[in-house]
Amino acid sequence: MILPSPLRIEPIAGYSPTIGRLVGMLTYARSTTFAAVDGLTMADLDHLQDANSNSIGALLAHFAVVERSYQILTFEDRELSAKENERWSAALKLGASGRQSLRGYPLEHYLDELTTVRRVTLEMFAERDDEWLERSVVQAPKINAHWAWFHVAEDEINHRGQIRWLRARLPKRLAPVRP
Amino acid sequence: MILPSPLRIEPIAGYSPTIGRLVGMLTYARSTTFAAVDGLTMADLDHLQDANSNSIGALLAHFAVVERSYQILTFEDRELSAKENERWSAALKLGASGRQSLRGYPLEHYLDELTTVRRVTLEMFAERDDEWLERSVVQAPKINAHWAWFHVAEDEINHRGQIRWLRARLPKRLAPVRP
Repeated sequence: MILPSPLRIEPIAGYSPTIGRLVGMLTYARSTTFAAVDGLTMADLDHLQDANSNSIGALLAHFAVVERSYQILTFEDRELSAKENERWSAALKLGASGRQSLRGYPLEHYLDELTTVRRVTLEMFAERDDEWLERSVVQAPKINAHWAWFHVAEDEINHRGQIRWLRARLPKRLAPVRP
Repeated sequence: MILPSPLRIEPIAGYSPTIGRLVGMLTYARSTTFAAVDGLTMADLDHLQDANSNSIGALLAHFAVVERSYQILTFEDRELSAKENERWSAALKLGASGRQSLRGYPLEHYLDELTTVRRVTLEMFAERDDEWLERSVVQAPKINAHWAWFHVAEDEINHRGQIRWLRARLPKRLAPVRP
């Protein structure tokens, strides 16, 4: 996979021009997410800043199911099945159910999920063209595929702002003793 | 000014195609900022969630000077002057100096600033083409103009995520007594 230069938005080899620019945005957003959570422990990922806060781990789980949902909506032209809705509900909706169930995973678990779902997104983009990107979403004709995928980046960036805020306020832990 | 449909990213009359798609993203991001601060009082805008937090007002001021700075960098091909740097420093850097100086303004003050600076952005975009959007920024050749303007939206979305978080935690005030 050819990764775009992180600080340029431009056509990328292997994608149609406008899809390439979009891939640049999605890739940049994802790289800042990875930087924002680098080195976090399971305790950090599970920490709740207050009674209404989402944990950083829950927000990472959210990114993966949001992206998977938009794959289904735009690549498969369908809505989520009842089973998918049920399985992803906590990560999609966050809040109380996310606080309850999205805990106890190490960072690698979330990063693996994100990497796996992104691989599919990029494969699907490589098979499509700019005309596809501009067409209306079948199940939601007020939006087009380009907006849908801009929104995937936009939602991630929104919550990444929250992750940065939360990370700066994690309880300080004693550094591990070095031998 | 023709506003794009908020839920489509596509060419917009009056702009070259790729600039039009970018305008769609910037416009959508700005509309969600305005929604996130709708109805806030001066006390809400000045409130500090904790000793290291930026107020919502300071974040709104930040959006305006970031956009103005990228206008200078990409439309005027220069860096900020010492005078501009000094005048905008608190809003650009946020943190302690922002907490001290960016207070005491009503919501309209911030929204007017944002509207004024955006008007210039859109005028400048209307005069330029997609080739301009892809060229390197003279003063920062590792980035191109498209990335610069994506970043303006991206930075705003990041902090809008924080604004939503902060707004949900504003101290509850007694509703004004209705006659």
